Amino acid sequence: MRALIMEQFKQPKFAKNFPIPEPKEGQVLIKVEAAPINPSDLSYINGQYGKEAKFPVVLGFEGSGTIVKSGGGAYADSLVNKRVAFSAETGSYAEFCLAKATSVVPISDNLTFSQASCSFVNPLTCVAFLEIVKEAGVKAIVHSAAASALGKMVVRYFQQNGIKVINLVRRQEQVDTLKAIGAEYVLNQTDPNFNQELSKLSEELQATIFFDAVAGTTTADVVFQMPRGSTVYVYGGLSGQESLIGPRVLIFKDATVKGFWLSPWLGKLKLEQIVSLVKKVQTLLTSDLKTDIAGEEKLENFSQALEKYAKNMSAGKILFRPTLL
Amino acid sequence: MRALIMEQFKQPKFAKNFPIPEPKEGQVLIKVEAAPINPSDLSYINGQYGKEAKFPVVLGFEGSGTIVKSGGGAYADSLVNKRVAFSAETGSYAEFCLAKATSVVPISDNLTFSQASCSFVNPLTCVAFLEIVKEAGVKAIVHSAAASALGKMVVRYFQQNGIKVINLVRRQEQVDTLKAIGAEYVLNQTDPNFNQELSKLSEELQATIFFDAVAGTTTADVVFQMPRGSTVYVYGGLSGQESLIGPRVLIFKDATVKGFWLSPWLGKLKLEQIVSLVKKVQTLLTSDLKTDIAGEEKLENFSQALEKYAKNMSAGKILFRPTLL
Repeated sequence: MRALIMEQFKQPKFAKNFPIPEPKEGQVLIKVEAAPINPSDLSYINGQYGKEAKFPVVLGFEGSGTIVKSGGGAYADSLVNKRVAFSAETGSYAEFCLAKATSVVPISDNLTFSQASCSFVNPLTCVAFLEIVKEAGVKAIVHSAAASALGKMVVRYFQQNGIKVINLVRRQEQVDTLKAIGAEYVLNQTDPNFNQELSKLSEELQATIFFDAVAGTTTADVVFQMPRGSTVYVYGGLSGQESLIGPRVLIFKDATVKGFWLSPWLGKLKLEQIVSLVKKVQTLLTSDLKTDIAGEEKLENFSQALEKYAKNMSAGKILFRPTLL
Repeated sequence: MRALIMEQFKQPKFAKNFPIPEPKEGQVLIKVEAAPINPSDLSYINGQYGKEAKFPVVLGFEGSGTIVKSGGGAYADSLVNKRVAFSAETGSYAEFCLAKATSVVPISDNLTFSQASCSFVNPLTCVAFLEIVKEAGVKAIVHSAAASALGKMVVRYFQQNGIKVINLVRRQEQVDTLKAIGAEYVLNQTDPNFNQELSKLSEELQATIFFDAVAGTTTADVVFQMPRGSTVYVYGGLSGQESLIGPRVLIFKDATVKGFWLSPWLGKLKLEQIVSLVKKVQTLLTSDLKTDIAGEEKLENFSQALEKYAKNMSAGKILFRPTLL
C-alpha cells in the first residue's frame, strides 16, 4: 500500500509498497479516507513525542474510513463495512490502517469523512480540559495559542458549558477570527497593555487554570499575571522552547505547573466512559467541536502539507486523503 | 539603637541611631542576642523575596534574646524577662526587635542564644517538608543543595522518621560531610554517572518528591531522572536562575512543579498547631534539628558577614550578635 513512513526521526518518507497490516483478534482493518495533521504528529516526527517509535513506522494518529476486515471477535466482526472515525494502532497516513475495535466509532451518514477524521485528538482534549476545570471547581480559564483548531473548539464548548475563556493570541487577525465565532475575551500578547489587562481580567473572572500550548517564556509570563495559587497545564511546546519558570512565581505566587497528555488521561477512564465521551463528541462534531479544514492533500505531497500546516496552524487542519492519486 | 537597615534594595547599611520600636498590644520588645543570616535574607536584600519592604526597614527574620517590655495583654506581660527564640515583626539585626507574643518561644536554660536563634526558619521548613511527604504517602525524597544547614537537618530528621533521602551536592567534601553525619544516599551532581545513579536509586526507593533549593537547570534535569508522576517543590533559587522545564518533562513524565514558602504554609495551620510544632522543634534543637554555626559577627561587619555566608553556605550559619561592639 502507499503510506507516509519514517525510518528515522525528522525524515518522513513516501513509500509506494509498504505491507498492508494484518488485524489480530479485537482489531479491525480500515480503508483510510482522511487523516489530519495535528501538532502531536509534528512532535512525533521530530522525536519530541512521548511514544517510542519502532522503525519503520507509519505516521498519523487518527482518521476516518471504512472497515474492510475484522481480526476476529464478535464486536470487531459486527463493524465490517461500517463508516468510522478511529484512533490508530498503526499509522493513519496510509491506504490501510489497524485500530482496536474499541477505538473506533461508527459515524452517521450526514458526517463527511473529512469532518469525522478529526474526532479524537482535539475534541477529546477539549472535553478533557472541561472535565479538569469542572473537577477543580473553577469558573474561568486562560488559553494560549487560542486561535488553533483546538482553541476554537474550546471557545464554543466552554461557552456552552458556562465556563469563561480568556483567549490569548499573537496577531490582530486571530483576535478578529475568535471574536467572529463568539469569543468574549481575546487578548493579544503583543499589545503594550497585555500584562495589565490579563492581570485585571483574570482577577475579575477568577481564572485560575491556564492551558498552555506554547511553553517558552509564555508559561511563567502568563501565570505571573494570574491570581495567586493558579495552575498551568502545559500541553504543547509550540514555541519550540522549554518553559522558563522563576522560583518567585512558584514560591511567592504559589503557582503549580503540570503537564497534560491525552493518552494517559484517557487511560485512567473506564472503557464505557471513553465510549460515552466519544459519542458525545460525535453529536457535536458539526457544531461546538467542529474543525476548520484548510486543505486536503495526497500522501505524495507530504512535504508541502507538513510545511503548510506548521507555518499557519490557525488557518485550519490539513488532511491527508490516501485514496487520492 | 544600632541596626542593620535598608533604604533601598541591594544596599544594606549600618545605622547607629535607629529609633527603638514601641510594642503594641500583643507584642513584645526583645533585646536581641543572636540573629542568623538565612538564604531568604539574601533574597530580601536583593529585592527577590515575596514580602514587600517599607523603607527604611531593619533586616533579619528570626533570632533569640530576652524580652524587656510588653505592649500589653496578659500573655505578652507574662513573657517579660524570659529568654526566647522568635520570628521577628521588625528586623532582628538590631539591638531591639518587636515580635508578636504568639511568635515567641521561651527557651530552656541549657540552650545557648546562638543555637536558639535558628529555631524558626530552617527547623520549621524541615518539619513542613516531612508533613508534605507524609501527607503524600511517599517513602523517599530527593533534596538538592543538601549540604546546607537545612539539608543536614533533613538528613537527621527524616532518618528518625523513616523517610529515605537522596542528597544531591556538587562537591566531594560535601559528600564526606553528609556521610559523616549519617546520610545513607549522597550523589555528586558533577559525577559522570550522576544521571544513571539518580535514575536507578530514585526508581528503587520510589523517591517521587524533590525539594529543590537550586532552580535553574537542576529542577528539570533531576525530575527527568525520577519516576513518572513525581512532584518538585522549588523552595529557593540558589542558582540565581529560573527553572527551565521542558514540555516533555511535564507532559510525558507527568511531572508537577510547585513552590514551597514557609509563611503561607504556616498560615494555613491553627495557632495551637504552630505552637506544638515549635515546641517539638525546641526539643530537637541540640540533636536532629541542630544548626552548625560557622561564625559570629558584629552588626558593623555586615558586608564581610553577608559575603562570607553567600560564598559558602554549607560551612554553617553566620550569626549577628547585636550586643557586640
